[in-house]
Amino acid sequence: MESLLYEQLADRLIDHIEEGVYPVGSRLPSVRALAKSEQVSIATVTSAYSILEERGWAEPRPKSGYFVKRTAIEPLSMPKKSRAKTSPRAVTVAELAMAIQRGAAASRGVVFSAAIPDLEFPIAEVVKRNFTRLSRYSSSFGNGYETPEGLLELRLQIARRAIDAGVHISPDALITTMGAQNAISHALRALTTAGDIVAVESPCYFGLLQMIEGFGLKAIEIPTDPVTGISVDALTLALQRWPIKAILTIPAFTNPLGCIIPMEKKRILIQLAQRYDIPIIEDDIYGDLQFEGRRSKALKSIDPDGRVLWCSSVSKTMDPHLRVGWIAPGRYYDEVLQQKFVSEISSPTLPQVVTAEIMKKGLYDRHLRHARASYHQRYMRLLELAREHFPESMRVSSAKGGLVAWFEMPRSVDATELYYICREEDIHIAPGELFSVSGLYQNCFRLSFSNEWTPEREQAIAFIGRILKKMT
Amino acid sequence: MESLLYEQLADRLIDHIEEGVYPVGSRLPSVRALAKSEQVSIATVTSAYSILEERGWAEPRPKSGYFVKRTAIEPLSMPKKSRAKTSPRAVTVAELAMAIQRGAAASRGVVFSAAIPDLEFPIAEVVKRNFTRLSRYSSSFGNGYETPEGLLELRLQIARRAIDAGVHISPDALITTMGAQNAISHALRALTTAGDIVAVESPCYFGLLQMIEGFGLKAIEIPTDPVTGISVDALTLALQRWPIKAILTIPAFTNPLGCIIPMEKKRILIQLAQRYDIPIIEDDIYGDLQFEGRRSKALKSIDPDGRVLWCSSVSKTMDPHLRVGWIAPGRYYDEVLQQKFVSEISSPTLPQVVTAEIMKKGLYDRHLRHARASYHQRYMRLLELAREHFPESMRVSSAKGGLVAWFEMPRSVDATELYYICREEDIHIAPGELFSVSGLYQNCFRLSFSNEWTPEREQAIAFIGRILKKMT
Ligand SMILES: Cc1ncc(COP(=O)(O)O)c(C=O)c1O
Ligand SMILES: Cc1ncc(COP(=O)(O)O)c(C=O)c1O
Repeated sequence: MESLLYEQLADRLIDHIEEGVYPVGSRLPSVRALAKSEQVSIATVTSAYSILEERGWAEPRPKSGYFVKRTAIEPLSMPKKSRAKTSPRAVTVAELAMAIQRGAAASRGVVFSAAIPDLEFPIAEVVKRNFTRLSRYSSSFGNGYETPEGLLELRLQIARRAIDAGVHISPDALITTMGAQNAISHALRALTTAGDIVAVESPCYFGLLQMIEGFGLKAIEIPTDPVTGISVDALTLALQRWPIKAILTIPAFTNPLGCIIPMEKKRILIQLAQRYDIPIIEDDIYGDLQFEGRRSKALKSIDPDGRVLWCSSVSKTMDPHLRVGWIAPGRYYDEVLQQKFVSEISSPTLPQVVTAEIMKKGLYDRHLRHARASYHQRYMRLLELAREHFPESMRVSSAKGGLVAWFEMPRSVDATELYYICREEDIHIAPGELFSVSGLYQNCFRLSFSNEWTPEREQAIAFIGRILKKMT
Repeated sequence: MESLLYEQLADRLIDHIEEGVYPVGSRLPSVRALAKSEQVSIATVTSAYSILEERGWAEPRPKSGYFVKRTAIEPLSMPKKSRAKTSPRAVTVAELAMAIQRGAAASRGVVFSAAIPDLEFPIAEVVKRNFTRLSRYSSSFGNGYETPEGLLELRLQIARRAIDAGVHISPDALITTMGAQNAISHALRALTTAGDIVAVESPCYFGLLQMIEGFGLKAIEIPTDPVTGISVDALTLALQRWPIKAILTIPAFTNPLGCIIPMEKKRILIQLAQRYDIPIIEDDIYGDLQFEGRRSKALKSIDPDGRVLWCSSVSKTMDPHLRVGWIAPGRYYDEVLQQKFVSEISSPTLPQVVTAEIMKKGLYDRHLRHARASYHQRYMRLLELAREHFPESMRVSSAKGGLVAWFEMPRSVDATELYYICREEDIHIAPGELFSVSGLYQNCFRLSFSNEWTPEREQAIAFIGRILKKMT
């Protein structure tokens, strides 16, 4: 698109001005010269210069071309530095995590670092089609701000589908959110204030650790068994020792371990929460992505007194760009709704309309059956490839669902270094360091297996294997 | 739509079950009887009962129909009660505000209570068309989560348009958000912790007061002149007396007063912020809706050292359902970006794509010219109607832009009572009580004038006038 070209060019010129390539007062290249050097049309350069002019970066002088006016950039403060802390530690992985997300978003190479669904599945077309179709009716969305609890039609569908997870709930007990992260953020804000301690699994999805840091809370890491999930003994000890305000858990296909907490242990968790009278935030975002058998019941399904805040979204099952999620906050409904209302008033309407329609038509469930089987196969293929290429000393978690697998290497391996080496080749992994607030898991990394195995992706695994072999 | 009918019926049945109309174990009406009493088809009733069954509310028994199984509803805690506090007061208007928003969203009558744009303007069609068109390309939105700073294309357009407000800024200094409320919430979270004091205008838009309450902060209300805005003397006194952490202001068309802070006063505000070394959060959501003349320059345009956090959105200019807004956080960029990242990861993509496209094509600016002129006329008509119908003792603010006007009545008038009386007639106003944390403005109310004047709306003003005359 021509329009994008000239804006890209304007951007590059501004970069050059900022970097001092073209100092304030200096003459910019002539239109003709720039068109030649950039291999674009005269019109493109003229448009780019108009943007520069409009935005105050350059000014035309009669008969002599464009001159740099002054930089319009604001002073930005330096990124905050990570600090080491003692237990229970403040979390300090935000910057690394953001850099990794940015790397993945910009990459044209091989991305194993992001837990995103396969966006080539047929459901992607269904989403598009429904956006196209339903956007025509957007005037029927109501004549003001949507209510903070969110679109009734969507809450109905979520309530209907929740039965599958053993959760019997009225649409009135649900609040829609902008994804699961947003749901959990409202839960944490409703339940805690700065300085409070939250118990999390270890290793733990870094997005949650970052949230805890960002809210000035402290995370206490509870050792987690790669097969049966969070250690009840360790959690009990922690509850005895610290004034823990909430338990934050991913019982189904813990990110990164992929394991599932058995029902008996879920019951014990509930009993513990009752004994210490604290809430449990259940992040059930992967619950619908179980490889085999009947969907396991959510913790929420055995919640005796409304102390489980059940959070999920369609980010892992459909598309994270929709930013559609939900929370069933139990007895904390009022507080959570208030947090949503004051933080964003309401959620964008159209993505909710589209999601509700796809669920209602049964297309979501049909898609899930397909997705579960595909992800299972792709996970099996990852195991095969890892066995073929990685050093024999590697250990890998046994994922029962979800989109990611966790690899543990001998102590000599530095996965953060591995991450940087891979990034040079435009191959992106998630180093283990991200998943802890106390420097654990330096020798671990997480790989997502949600995309189809192409020769390029398979070669990337081989590449990682070669580096690992050098490191061990 | 038949599909909606049966779901509505299912909902009503569930309501009845919850209310005890149909106790657990009792037999529900036969399909035939219900079809008759509800005047719907047999198929509709059958579908409704299937929903009840699916969701665990009812079960079929062979040959005898459907029976109530058990309620799936969760216990919800009672709404929190308002408490009176001493200066600087905690804010306690959240529940009333939410009720008013809900009333407005559900109303088929006359809504003067919500500051929403006219959704019948041609731009609404443009938004729809662009959603329809651009949703087809959604696969080009990238292969993972969008970056937290938001769509570059949108940031480019915002930066380009910012020139109009005197703000020269790089797209890299901008972060997109889910509306202005969301932008301000990230700003407040980046700048304050629970217990801190924030200075606000008085009267102040209740959404901001609620946010301050919701975050456990305290609002200090600075008297505000209905013509020249916030009182510099009062602000100076407050800064001397209290450890104020941030100033939160709506310099252009203060909600509810509609006035604009003159440039000289803006300079003094900046000087004060520098002297006390505190940031200013500038809510510029109405800035583009100036009735006459050139758009006034934003506070941000004279920000000497990055201490102004400039916030805005398209909610008042285009459509609040889009939830598209932005912030230029100046020197607090990193902290604000972190708050967005940990609270929601990224914003929904498609509404950003659509907004960027409409701005880029110049359609946004063309619409604004039209909207400004219309709103000006509608405001003038409101003044005419108020003069005709309201008691002579009324006073009305002189709005220079925006969507709302503020009315002050003699002390004998109780605007909250007026609100309840009007609501009975499905006429919705915003009572003055909402706009203060210390019980001021009981005799004031806010009316929006964004909608076209129809006979129904004009009669509603006459109705309000009759009640007011009884009250004075
Ligand atoms: C365990 C877990 N929770 C929450 C999220 C965030 O999900 P959403 O995109 O719905 O906000 C993720 C995304 O990676 C996740 O893995
Ligand atoms: C002054 C002011 N700020 C912010 C908002 C919230 O705007 P948004 O819908 O963009 O979040 C409103 C809405 O009424 C408002 O009047």
